[in-house]
Amino acid sequence: MIYLDNAATSFPKPEKVYNEVLNCMKNYAANPGRSSHDLSIKASAKILETREEIASFFNISNPFNIVFTKNATEALNIGIKGVLERGDHVITTVTEHNSVLRPLNSLMDKGISVTFLDIDEEGYIDINILKEKINKNTKLIIINHVSNVIGTIQNISEIGKIAKENGVIFMIDASQSAGSIDIDMKKSNIDLLAFPGHKGLLGPQGTGGLFISEDIDVNHFSHGGTGSNSDLLSQPNFLPDKFESGTLNVPAIAGLCEGIKFIKTIGINDIKSYEEELTNYLISEIQKLSFIKIYGPINKKRASVVSINLDGIDSSTVGYLLNQRNIAVRTGYHCAAMIHKCINTSNLGTVRISPNYFNKLEDIEKLIDSLKDIYNHRI
Amino acid sequence: MIYLDNAATSFPKPEKVYNEVLNCMKNYAANPGRSSHDLSIKASAKILETREEIASFFNISNPFNIVFTKNATEALNIGIKGVLERGDHVITTVTEHNSVLRPLNSLMDKGISVTFLDIDEEGYIDINILKEKINKNTKLIIINHVSNVIGTIQNISEIGKIAKENGVIFMIDASQSAGSIDIDMKKSNIDLLAFPGHKGLLGPQGTGGLFISEDIDVNHFSHGGTGSNSDLLSQPNFLPDKFESGTLNVPAIAGLCEGIKFIKTIGINDIKSYEEELTNYLISEIQKLSFIKIYGPINKKRASVVSINLDGIDSSTVGYLLNQRNIAVRTGYHCAAMIHKCINTSNLGTVRISPNYFNKLEDIEKLIDSLKDIYNHRI
Repeated sequence: MIYLDNAATSFPKPEKVYNEVLNCMKNYAANPGRSSHDLSIKASAKILETREEIASFFNISNPFNIVFTKNATEALNIGIKGVLERGDHVITTVTEHNSVLRPLNSLMDKGISVTFLDIDEEGYIDINILKEKINKNTKLIIINHVSNVIGTIQNISEIGKIAKENGVIFMIDASQSAGSIDIDMKKSNIDLLAFPGHKGLLGPQGTGGLFISEDIDVNHFSHGGTGSNSDLLSQPNFLPDKFESGTLNVPAIAGLCEGIKFIKTIGINDIKSYEEELTNYLISEIQKLSFIKIYGPINKKRASVVSINLDGIDSSTVGYLLNQRNIAVRTGYHCAAMIHKCINTSNLGTVRISPNYFNKLEDIEKLIDSLKDIYNHRI
Repeated sequence: MIYLDNAATSFPKPEKVYNEVLNCMKNYAANPGRSSHDLSIKASAKILETREEIASFFNISNPFNIVFTKNATEALNIGIKGVLERGDHVITTVTEHNSVLRPLNSLMDKGISVTFLDIDEEGYIDINILKEKINKNTKLIIINHVSNVIGTIQNISEIGKIAKENGVIFMIDASQSAGSIDIDMKKSNIDLLAFPGHKGLLGPQGTGGLFISEDIDVNHFSHGGTGSNSDLLSQPNFLPDKFESGTLNVPAIAGLCEGIKFIKTIGINDIKSYEEELTNYLISEIQKLSFIKIYGPINKKRASVVSINLDGIDSSTVGYLLNQRNIAVRTGYHCAAMIHKCINTSNLGTVRISPNYFNKLEDIEKLIDSLKDIYNHRI
């Protein structure tokens, strides 16, 4: 099968990821931070190694400011709900995933106001409007770095600068960018970074994380055993324990460690260039086909997430027919409730094609051939 | 290494668990419920199979009433915080793990009152006192089925009957019992069952779950993409999607499926008998050693979780010296803040020995020899 659904989860993973998950499960999957025997210590050491790999990857000074979560959604919930209180104002965008929109929507009943920035045809927000919308109650700006529907890359360094100048917490949803586009916490003034481990970072499912800057205080809504201060009824107030109750997912975190090392070995800019090459080729080939509409940026740099529709054929039908031709894409609304109104796909959804480093140009060629074939055989 | 720390996480896992995690990662670890291509459908099918295995294992009628979580702690947080509101009263015990105590403690500031039932020397609560403590505001009884410190098994069927008679929600923390002791949701009138996947159920770390009875409504505190109702800003209100935002941990859930099938193949009662045999042998051998104090039930049936202390040697020192002899146990407070006062180990902690189905009698023999050796060579 030609897998072009990496925006949902990357597949396959590097061989070393599989090997380390298995090695961990078979040789050291004890409970880290709980016991003092060799297996537990080895598990703790691997967890720390992963924290350190992530820290250097995103230019984070203190690895303990990284909290492991089960996915990016959990990280987004912790960050968003952990900093906002009644009376606060948030600025976000209509391009957000439901993992941002739904937590924010739940807070709107609790006295928190939200401004949803609109986007232009290519998916970009207007920086001047962002500036205008900041008011004295604005506590948080949360932006998805890359749209999971149309691949638009927002200028996070520019937005981070504005946030910093205005004393506003700056949070990034890096679900589609972590591992594909270089992110520097300091350069972009990021206070909170939520990322999945199983997409661009090439780790196993069941992994994700949240970076929390030293400068901000985040409330927690989950409590439990941490292996620390075990004799106290209150949750430890230090990172990462404050947010890491219960047994960690050691084998998957060990696998994530190897995923990040793989990216470092190739070089993130080489991964980015290769994904751009695939994406540019995909777009240039589709542009030759008058029966396909492409959404999002055309002549600007974009991430390897491309949404299209074929004239007169429902997106889910296209997905079904591509699957029959052994090509895996995602169709529908992509868990993004607001963007479809902007790109006029509210009743259509889109066919989303998301290649990654493990795809080849031939995969794109076969996709293009299949799309032509599907269109030519439409009823 | 002789691993006797199964109460923290079981190790090793059945070979089929390793194989399925790897098979899933390599062959079908797509995003379940998101796309309609073959890999995603296969992932969804495995998730459903696991739900069905769990449902039949616990005698649950509807597999969709099982919510996957990252560990038991997450399940406990969802259940506890999802049913309690200002003014409610909760009955629990001093034997609870911090994954119950800390969530409850956090709610005591929010107008929720908690009665902590005391225990006798062997760790049992007094059923008559439980009955007396129920008042008109009592909303929830939450009990750990098996103490993670002293292995006491509470009579959950008797407690469940009382809860039902009084219209009180009955929640079980099955962290130490699921997979080792037969649990029947209907017979014991359980409304909420929180369980880890990586302990007695022999699945990988990163797994856990919560059964939610049809009869009760649980609020959710996490929101995000579910692959369902993607065009809506509100969280779906049906199970399991209401509580399963973001990408599931497919490979680990696939592994859990095989862990449960392994238990079914052996038979849970055979597993229980074998663990009892190991535990009885352990206790009878320790009873011969006058320098060791055993906590918890002596002549009653207990789970394979045994806490001890050696005269005049700190528990952590014992753990350290056992580790030098290639034996893994846990020492200290075991993330249970209240029980140590009852068993007089507030300043001591305990050495916890938790064998499981994969241990042999020889492991216990070697442990006993090592304990003698450690005591004989004390300074």
